[in-house]
Formats: sequence, structure tokens, C-alpha cells
Amino acid sequence: MERYDIAIIGTGPAGLSAAVTAKIRNKTVLLLGSRDLSPKVVKAHAIQNYLGLPNITGAELGAAFQASLDSVGVAVTEDKITAAYNMGDYYALQGADAFYEASTLILATGMIPGKLLPGEEALLGRGVSYCATCDAALYRGKDVAVIGYSAKEEHEAAFLSEIAANVAYFPMYKEIENLPDSVKIITDRPKEITQADGRRQVVTGEGQYAYDGVFILRDSISPGQLVPGLELDGSHVKVDRTMATNLPGCFACGDVVGLPYQYIKSAGEGNVAALSAVQYLDMKKHSP
Amino acid sequence: MERYDIAIIGTGPAGLSAAVTAKIRNKTVLLLGSRDLSPKVVKAHAIQNYLGLPNITGAELGAAFQASLDSVGVAVTEDKITAAYNMGDYYALQGADAFYEASTLILATGMIPGKLLPGEEALLGRGVSYCATCDAALYRGKDVAVIGYSAKEEHEAAFLSEIAANVAYFPMYKEIENLPDSVKIITDRPKEITQADGRRQVVTGEGQYAYDGVFILRDSISPGQLVPGLELDGSHVKVDRTMATNLPGCFACGDVVGLPYQYIKSAGEGNVAALSAVQYLDMKKHSP
Repeated sequence: MERYDIAIIGTGPAGLSAAVTAKIRNKTVLLLGSRDLSPKVVKAHAIQNYLGLPNITGAELGAAFQASLDSVGVAVTEDKITAAYNMGDYYALQGADAFYEASTLILATGMIPGKLLPGEEALLGRGVSYCATCDAALYRGKDVAVIGYSAKEEHEAAFLSEIAANVAYFPMYKEIENLPDSVKIITDRPKEITQADGRRQVVTGEGQYAYDGVFILRDSISPGQLVPGLELDGSHVKVDRTMATNLPGCFACGDVVGLPYQYIKSAGEGNVAALSAVQYLDMKKHSP
Repeated sequence: MERYDIAIIGTGPAGLSAAVTAKIRNKTVLLLGSRDLSPKVVKAHAIQNYLGLPNITGAELGAAFQASLDSVGVAVTEDKITAAYNMGDYYALQGADAFYEASTLILATGMIPGKLLPGEEALLGRGVSYCATCDAALYRGKDVAVIGYSAKEEHEAAFLSEIAANVAYFPMYKEIENLPDSVKIITDRPKEITQADGRRQVVTGEGQYAYDGVFILRDSISPGQLVPGLELDGSHVKVDRTMATNLPGCFACGDVVGLPYQYIKSAGEGNVAALSAVQYLDMKKHSP
């Protein structure tokens, strides 16, 4: 397996800035995210304070970011990383489509709107999963629920319905777009995940439903869930002024490390994180 | 005297980004520096990693920065600040041309190439001065030396020659451009400033010269000299992640707070410093 110098998770301003600087410094870069870059950027009405690009629309800023990425020849790998493990000498990344390895890791995952469900964290890996592709095989012929935070997750439920005996889908948004008839839609809003009688219980205002497995699918997962052992400061990743986290070779930048949520702040931090990762790699190369 | 909400010293990427964000947040802004913005930026051959402006020349980047400044209607006040004092409730800024007051201060002065002369810091205010305009009157009819780091300082020496009895000029650069005949040029390179027999001694490799006052004139002065009481970390200003210094209402950003010296990092930090200053002002307004 190719081991990249630097894996970057996130394609907002922080991740893109990190990718551009890392590539200029001749490192191999794995940039994981969306080919549409950041929906938050692209949908913004106007940005007034990105120095050098006055009064730019979100769509124009997205195009300018893409031009920067193109200028250094970095392409986005469109995969959703569900976990990244510190293996001592490198990081192992579990994607929905593949596994990856990188000597250093830069987290630029942005902030997740909303909170975890009570019980979600405690049961993660014990009947609660963030990745249908990874864990579907565990539930062959069994009952599963999918709590989907956007219509993008519907195809995951469809995939699960080919393997599990029964799939229930709890949409956390308004309009269902496209689900097979075999998937049962439940419009109660999940409030908690518990465990009883050896099964996972999805508790709603109206009652509770029992399953063998519960998949909770969001656009991104919280950094503490993503990288086991990562030190947080409230809901943000704790970093020093070099953007280093508590894990060696793991850096973070952008909204995920704290306020203010500003594009130019994120871009600046991405640059610093990349240069810190470069320095870490150089140091490792020269140490015995 | 008008008291500005936010005074910003420095017109590199950090200061400009701070000015743009502060103005958007409806604060009154005094931006002090050069109408040419940053010579370092404008003279750069090419910048590859300013996200959103791929492969841009320094001149183009300077023009883009100017466009941002114009878009929010901030003009540069061209003055050199020689000292900024924390007055408790506000900052008093001593310029070569005027005095200014501001409720908060953002230092974006960049890094000074080179070091202080030995003895310079110890004798500052005791016969050593950074400001001819401010202190010339103290040396009426006396002997002074000017150690000038660029041809821009020659007019300061010319001004001093109208007041002091004798002016010696030590150029720290190659070509003298325009000095009155009454100013004595000494091409020995100053190595140290000492005190002996109640006079300041400029020590060179060839010997030493005695004066009543010594003016040391550089494009910028070190942050610790500029703002008495400011806490440093080596040669950089010590800041936390909100860009706050140890002095209430005083923030710093860009090269002056530390490596890496990168434009996008500076612009990001300027944004954070401005928002922290805004928050400080709002907090002060709402406290009794």
C-alpha cells in the first residue's frame, strides 16, 4: 500500500491550504473530502474579508480555491473517513471505499452542526456504527436501523437492505429522496440510543425500537470519534500554535480547532499545519 | 483628539487583514504604515500558496490587497510609530508626525532583519532615542550622532542639524543620497553603544566617538521597544490562540508573533486579532 507523507481530511479552506503548501514542499499528499470542496463555502452569499479577494461570492471563492488546487496538481480523493488510527510510525485511515496509510495526518474536518445522541458514544463499536460499507457484513440477515442526517445517506440504507433482513430508516431531515420500498421509514425523531435485552434501542418521543445494529450516518463525525486518543478542548481539537495535537504527527486546523469560524483564519492555519507536518517528516527522516 | 476603536500598526498581510475585518465589524480603524503596503510582498517574485490566488506575483498580490482595503474604505495613515503606551483604558501612540489614541492596539509590525546593537536597549531613553522629531529639542546646541539604517533616515539627520550643534551620521547602508554639508559622515560601522564620562559612546572597529545623544533610526523598531511592558517569547511577541498579548486590549499577528513567515498565515492571524479586539471592545462597553 502506498504510504503518503501527509493525509489531509477535509476540503474546506483549511484542508485545501494545507494541501497546496504540502505539495509545494514536495510531499506526497492524500486529500480526502468532496470534489465539490466545501458546500459551506460554495453556498455562501458573499465573503467580504478574505484578504486579496474582495466581495467575492461563495461560488467564485470555491472556483478560486479549485484553481489553487489545480495549480499544484492535487486531486481530491472522494471518500469518507470513519476512523484514523495512530499506529506509532504512521496513521491508518479507514474509508468507506478503501484503507489508506500516511506518515502524518492533518485534520481539517470543520465543525459538525449539532451534538451526538445520548448513548451514541458509549455504544460505538458495540452495535452502533458510523460506516455501512465497513460493518454491513456483521448484520447479514439481522435487523438494523439507519439514522440518516442527510439524503446522501439513503444509498447507504439501500445498500444495507441488500444484506440485512430488515432496515428501518430514521430521517433527521425533511424530504426523503430515494429509498427502496424494502426500507421502512420511521419519522419519529431519535432522542437516545440505549441497550436492552442484548439489542440496541432507538428511543424516540413516541416509544422505542429494538435492532441488532444502529448506523448513525452524518456528513462528518466528531474528531474525538474519528481519531481515538485525540485530546479535545470542549468540542474542538486541542492544538498549540504550530497546530500540533497531542498525537505525534497529527495536526489540526480550521473550524475544528476553534473559533472564529472564518475562511482566511482556516486557510492560514492550514498553511501552518502543513509546514509543521513537513518539519515533523524532516525531523523523523534525520533521526536514527 | 479622536479616539479610534482599533489602531493597527503595520501594512503587511496581517495588518491589512485585521483592518478589513475590523472595518466590516463597524469599528473605527487607524491603519498605520506605508501607502505602498508591504515592500516585502510587492517585491516578491511569485507566491504559490496564497489559497485562492494561485501563482501570483508580488505586485499582483499587493494590488489585490489594495483592492480589499479599498472595498471597505480604509486608507493608510503614513506615519512611523515610535512608541505605544498602555494608558489603562486606551493606548497612546507616538508617531513621528502626530499623536494618536485608540481603545485597542493590534501589532502587525513584521520582523526586523538584524539585531539591536549591544547597549542600545539599556541606554534607550538615557541618551539613545528612536525618534528625531520627538527628542531633537533635548539636544539643542549639543553633539548628536545618527545611526541610519536606510537613506530614508537622512532627512531626520538634516532636521537634527538645524537644532544640534554638531551631527555625525553613521550610514548602515551603501550609498548616501542627500545629506547637508553640515552633517559629518562617518563610515566606520557602529558595533556597540556605551556610556562614559556622562556621554554616549559609539564604538566602532576603529575606535569610539562621544556624543550627548545617539539617534538609532530603522524602518521599524522591536516590539518590546515599541510597547513598554509587552511580554516577548524570544524575539517574537507572546500571544495566545486569540492573538491576545499580556497587555489588555493589545493583540498581535503575523511575522511578529512567530514562524512560519507566510502571507496566508499572517492574513489569517490578522482576522483573528481583529475579531478578538472587537470582542474586547464589546465586552468593555457592556461592563460597568
